[in-house]
Amino acid sequence: MTSSLKPTAVVVGVGAEQGLGAALCRKFASEGHHVLVAGRTREKLDRVVAGLTASGGSGEAVVSDATREEDVARLFDRALAPGAGFAPVDLVVFNAGNNRQVPFRDLDAATFEDFWRVGCFGGFLVGREAARRLVPLGRGTVIFTGASASLRGRAGFTHFAAAKAGLRMISQGMAREFGPQGLHVAHVLIDGGIDGERLHTLAPERVKALGEDGLLHIDAIAETYWQLHRQHRSAWTQEVDLRPFKESF
Amino acid sequence: MTSSLKPTAVVVGVGAEQGLGAALCRKFASEGHHVLVAGRTREKLDRVVAGLTASGGSGEAVVSDATREEDVARLFDRALAPGAGFAPVDLVVFNAGNNRQVPFRDLDAATFEDFWRVGCFGGFLVGREAARRLVPLGRGTVIFTGASASLRGRAGFTHFAAAKAGLRMISQGMAREFGPQGLHVAHVLIDGGIDGERLHTLAPERVKALGEDGLLHIDAIAETYWQLHRQHRSAWTQEVDLRPFKESF
Amino acid sequence: MTSSLKPTAVVVGVGAEQGLGAALCRKFASEGHHVLVAGRTREKLDRVVAGLTASGGSGEAVVSDATREEDVARLFDRALAPGAGFAPVDLVVFNAGNNRQVPFRDLDAATFEDFWRVGCFGGFLVGREAARRLVPLGRGTVIFTGASASLRGRAGFTHFAAAKAGLRMISQGMAREFGPQGLHVAHVLIDGGIDGERLHTLAPERVKALGEDGLLHIDAIAETYWQLHRQHRSAWTQEVDLRPFKESF
Amino acid sequence: MTSSLKPTAVVVGVGAEQGLGAALCRKFASEGHHVLVAGRTREKLDRVVAGLTASGGSGEAVVSDATREEDVARLFDRALAPGAGFAPVDLVVFNAGNNRQVPFRDLDAATFEDFWRVGCFGGFLVGREAARRLVPLGRGTVIFTGASASLRGRAGFTHFAAAKAGLRMISQGMAREFGPQGLHVAHVLIDGGIDGERLHTLAPERVKALGEDGLLHIDAIAETYWQLHRQHRSAWTQEVDLRPFKESF
Repeated sequence: MTSSLKPTAVVVGVGAEQGLGAALCRKFASEGHHVLVAGRTREKLDRVVAGLTASGGSGEAVVSDATREEDVARLFDRALAPGAGFAPVDLVVFNAGNNRQVPFRDLDAATFEDFWRVGCFGGFLVGREAARRLVPLGRGTVIFTGASASLRGRAGFTHFAAAKAGLRMISQGMAREFGPQGLHVAHVLIDGGIDGERLHTLAPERVKALGEDGLLHIDAIAETYWQLHRQHRSAWTQEVDLRPFKESF
Repeated sequence: MTSSLKPTAVVVGVGAEQGLGAALCRKFASEGHHVLVAGRTREKLDRVVAGLTASGGSGEAVVSDATREEDVARLFDRALAPGAGFAPVDLVVFNAGNNRQVPFRDLDAATFEDFWRVGCFGGFLVGREAARRLVPLGRGTVIFTGASASLRGRAGFTHFAAAKAGLRMISQGMAREFGPQGLHVAHVLIDGGIDGERLHTLAPERVKALGEDGLLHIDAIAETYWQLHRQHRSAWTQEVDLRPFKESF
Repeated sequence: MTSSLKPTAVVVGVGAEQGLGAALCRKFASEGHHVLVAGRTREKLDRVVAGLTASGGSGEAVVSDATREEDVARLFDRALAPGAGFAPVDLVVFNAGNNRQVPFRDLDAATFEDFWRVGCFGGFLVGREAARRLVPLGRGTVIFTGASASLRGRAGFTHFAAAKAGLRMISQGMAREFGPQGLHVAHVLIDGGIDGERLHTLAPERVKALGEDGLLHIDAIAETYWQLHRQHRSAWTQEVDLRPFKESF
Repeated sequence: MTSSLKPTAVVVGVGAEQGLGAALCRKFASEGHHVLVAGRTREKLDRVVAGLTASGGSGEAVVSDATREEDVARLFDRALAPGAGFAPVDLVVFNAGNNRQVPFRDLDAATFEDFWRVGCFGGFLVGREAARRLVPLGRGTVIFTGASASLRGRAGFTHFAAAKAGLRMISQGMAREFGPQGLHVAHVLIDGGIDGERLHTLAPERVKALGEDGLLHIDAIAETYWQLHRQHRSAWTQEVDLRPFKESF
């Protein structure tokens, strides 16, 4: 890869412009990556891409469902051959997932499975495809978005924790299997509410009560993802936590 | 429940007589429980039940697939109404699961999903049904069989760890949600090879190299499960590890 | 050791009869051990020994300060040569330690050091002496009393957590170094208030608010210590947690 | 503090120029801090300061023993009033500590205590003084250097792990107590050998066997410390691990 080519980044799980996925795209584009903006909803992806372009960055929307093997394969086909002026992917983020409190006895099997499919199985498909494509190149970074639930099952969030803990193991297994071959696999434990569209819409009082900087700013989170990618291979991070200064833990 | 009735235990994931599931059945029967011996293969279950009966214990085979909601519901219907002379279930063990090394890039999606379905989703169905039936009674014990992979993803075992870590979160979420209502939910981290049919068949040299007591005896494991059930509610264990004295960890 | 001799147990950190140390002594005596009741205050030890004797058990007081090397050596001299009718020690518990909330900035250096000396350094001296005496015999159990602070530093309890986390590492290092030589080293994480003299005196309202079985019963805790000692070496526990069913965690 | 003043950093535990302490000093100076270079040996500190100055940075040597309360107080007196042109300290690193394998039964009490005094008690003194001075200012960063032993006691390293685990609890307790008041307290788990003078002298074969980038580069480590200091308070890290890409873990 020559210095005149922009390397490609893949961000899986991009939704609203105020979400973490979009912020990751903006950060990577601002640092000189061509970004494949991947998610399920064409309109949302297009808006994020338009934002990148307006800021002088480069990106393209790839409509894809991370829980579908063929979509993930197609996404990485593009990431490895991203078009004139761009170098193959060297940075992948898996950022998909939901959260919703459900009392354990009320969980229906389809809900439990759906949380796993989006939060863990999708991460497997993306991680596996990233490993298949990047390990032969001997370099690259794969980052998974985790949560406090990755470490701890709480009442009402058992389904979410079961998916997130599985995803964390994917990051660990990959790190141990592929680290020595040059692939940097990291897991970011996000502990606290994210200052995005979701909480402002669903829980405006909670947002207010937390006060200034009581929620994680998406740009601040994105900064740490970027620093993980920049780490020298002699001193790689496998896991890092991020939380607002006020958050009790 | 009067003292003249035998309480019922359910053990899910019973296979060969030399396996842990069968040893749990024997232990619980020897301590006075009527045991529902649950698994997928009629012949194996019948042999275990015959063993219980021959030793003066009581049990019955319930052919069931823990990954099928209707099977699990039927199993607990029986466990709550176990027939004349028996009291409803107060002890449930989820012991299903497989293990097999597969390089991460060679994992097909069906294999990854199958490990989850048997090792985690089945645990969800059993745990949820146990909670639904036992929480209203305000008492009971549910024990999940874990492994070192529950805590740690190793190269070649990512699929296994992803399932086991999810199962552990089920045990934690249930413990936090239902402990205060009288349901004791525990997780046993089994770290090391089990001295059962499987390793003697698949890895006889490894068994020999480990020497006397280098593998976990199934009866010794079963003793700890039984002690968990006996614990007073003022001093419950949520998680305990078990490993052979020689095992490095 | 012939079956006609009572094995000896050592319990370090025995105070009031309503405390955990005393309960451990009673449990071990009731199971047939001769118990060396070790602590700093002669009167308290004598009362505990009188209780053992009154119940048909056997024990003797050994006034000793676990933070003094010569006291610990003398204690184990006795434990290895416990007098006619008794066999050398095969069970040791280190149960010393205090707790008290102090804001971090108000901690004076002497307090920080004192917590370490009693809670960690004493454990080192007892653990080391136990290892020196028991490893050559190829058998024995050493159990350390931990707390939730062993895993987690909380505001106002930094000094306590620093000592307890150190003690936990002693148990881990010993387990890894001496397990393969036949010494069972275990750590009990006690998470919650103990139903002993201390809380009833200091925090009677808290005790009342927690309700029935909201504090750990000392006899229930002692039962788990005893079961750890009884474990077969093919299935040893290194760490186990204990908490009241109502405790949030 | 106006933008024309250089903020001050304190690095405790600086030795040879090839060590991590010195690299941290260089990094912070290159980013515009005035650095108080603290350690026990005047000559070593002077060499590090000379290096800072030669590169256009600013620093001064403060001979001090982190295990002596009066030395630590004096160091922070200077850090709060660092002289003309410099603003009070906003970044503190505690980096002191040793490592050496000793079989547990051979540990003498003085060695066990010395490891604690240097590795844990010194951290307490530095952390407490930092909290006393920085919390009233409502800002600042305190970073502690940890190791894999902070999490895990291994055979032959029990004394080291006991100290390091205690230090980790200091970082946690401080983070929970002072985070909400604006003090960022972080812990860096360094897992692997550091590419410094020590290993090249003591274990040249091991260094060779590990190959290129098989040891942690001190500048790469220092980069992560710097990024921790730069984090926005809405997304702070409490703990991060660093290891060479080849390191098994």
